[in-house]
Amino acid sequence: MTMEFKQVTRNFGRKQVLRGVNMTWDAGQLYGLLGRNGAGKSTLMKIVNNRLFPTAGKVLLDGKSVTENAAAQNRIFLMSAATLYPGDSRIAQLFTLTQQMYGRFDDQLAAHLVQAFGLDPHQRLRKLSTGYRTIAKLIIALCVPCDFVMLDEPVLGLDANNREIFYQELAATFAKRPRTFIIASHLIEEIENLVTHVFVLDGGTITLDEDVADLAVKGRVVTGPAALVREWLSGTCVLRTVQLGGMVTAYTLDAPLEKPLPTGVSVDGMDLQQLYLELTRTGGGPHVD
Amino acid sequence: MTMEFKQVTRNFGRKQVLRGVNMTWDAGQLYGLLGRNGAGKSTLMKIVNNRLFPTAGKVLLDGKSVTENAAAQNRIFLMSAATLYPGDSRIAQLFTLTQQMYGRFDDQLAAHLVQAFGLDPHQRLRKLSTGYRTIAKLIIALCVPCDFVMLDEPVLGLDANNREIFYQELAATFAKRPRTFIIASHLIEEIENLVTHVFVLDGGTITLDEDVADLAVKGRVVTGPAALVREWLSGTCVLRTVQLGGMVTAYTLDAPLEKPLPTGVSVDGMDLQQLYLELTRTGGGPHVD
Repeated sequence: MTMEFKQVTRNFGRKQVLRGVNMTWDAGQLYGLLGRNGAGKSTLMKIVNNRLFPTAGKVLLDGKSVTENAAAQNRIFLMSAATLYPGDSRIAQLFTLTQQMYGRFDDQLAAHLVQAFGLDPHQRLRKLSTGYRTIAKLIIALCVPCDFVMLDEPVLGLDANNREIFYQELAATFAKRPRTFIIASHLIEEIENLVTHVFVLDGGTITLDEDVADLAVKGRVVTGPAALVREWLSGTCVLRTVQLGGMVTAYTLDAPLEKPLPTGVSVDGMDLQQLYLELTRTGGGPHVD
Repeated sequence: MTMEFKQVTRNFGRKQVLRGVNMTWDAGQLYGLLGRNGAGKSTLMKIVNNRLFPTAGKVLLDGKSVTENAAAQNRIFLMSAATLYPGDSRIAQLFTLTQQMYGRFDDQLAAHLVQAFGLDPHQRLRKLSTGYRTIAKLIIALCVPCDFVMLDEPVLGLDANNREIFYQELAATFAKRPRTFIIASHLIEEIENLVTHVFVLDGGTITLDEDVADLAVKGRVVTGPAALVREWLSGTCVLRTVQLGGMVTAYTLDAPLEKPLPTGVSVDGMDLQQLYLELTRTGGGPHVD
């Protein structure tokens, strides 16, 4: 069970938002999809879900294009900021509607989540606050029978208590019924402990595709006099370099730790939030120094 | 220049969302309005802005009701998740439209912010991503000439870099042209250093109305054997008590620090995020023990 992106490109008028995205989503994984505002995360997810079509390239589910493929689409779900449901519907009606569309729906989990979040299932969608509208959509996303569930900013407008409930409930349902979640979120430090693999989308392509465990082990911040840092790192892939006067800070997953460290150069660990910020600053992106 | 809330109450059908809110907003302040999802923060702001009317009670600007008062409304601005602008408008057109509505508009600041956030002013509103739609609305909110600017979830969908830019630009424009901002946000730790006074809305009323400086000085977490903690705190206003077995944790702004501390009881400081979480948990709210 695999979702493959092959050179996926999407233009809006003259603007190229995605320029040849290659990526693979495997079965039973928790992926984080990171990227700046406007990087194209939502565009990418909408292409998987046929709300948009690619200008070029393909998305394949088990080798078959997902585009206008009803069988594939029945295995894919996208929860996003856009509300496609009729606003007058009551929450319980949306659950029934979803069941009819996807054939199954985890009623038991829905009942549990409604209580955990304190959502009134008899309320109409349009009468809910911003946060509770997100909660209603989240509950649906966790109860559909789909193999690939994309969550585009799942905690938009949620308070700290409800964000915590969501992270716990997602981990619980994932443990009970493994399927693949793809989570696009700007609260990196909150999803850092939830996801097992991250993709960074920047400048229209995937600039990072790594297991979180590897990032924690391999990520290094190297600081020191520019000439010494450059020499020590020569031949390695540096994700980003920031120079201030004669001093340089370099971010790498590939530090040559076996080489002796020159005096004045220090090497520290890197957290995901820090790495992400560096990767997506204007002018960022990996390069070999 | 004062905005006064007098027993403001609002029902939706049988549901009482606001039940007698009393609060005062002074000139040239940065206020934080905190509260759980569905607490009524947006309802409160919409009442000030005449998008909703109160069931009972009044909001007075310099002694005069703001309800259906065009002169008062011209001094009030609300930025919220709801997009009231025509989606086909280009950003630059929205700036012009706002100028026409409010008489003035800080073009110079708008040009600076457009560049700082990397927003294309020729883009149409509906073509923007979730984050950039928020950014467009934020820019307008910072450039209107109003005395009271309410920001309902101003960083909804913004990435970490853009949130940082927003906090910095808000502080800068506030220093240059002091007016009153009321910020409702769920990212407490991010606004903690920005606002000078916080209100907590819980159960339909204001349960906390304090300067942040006082909270930092007065907030205490008292932990120890239940009987000892209760005795030490007797007669003081306890915001919340959490009991686990025979041990109790009590949150208070009113610890009797002059009294000797019983053995086994400890007193610690309290941060805003922690206080807020405790104040708004189910069953929270202040009580005198």
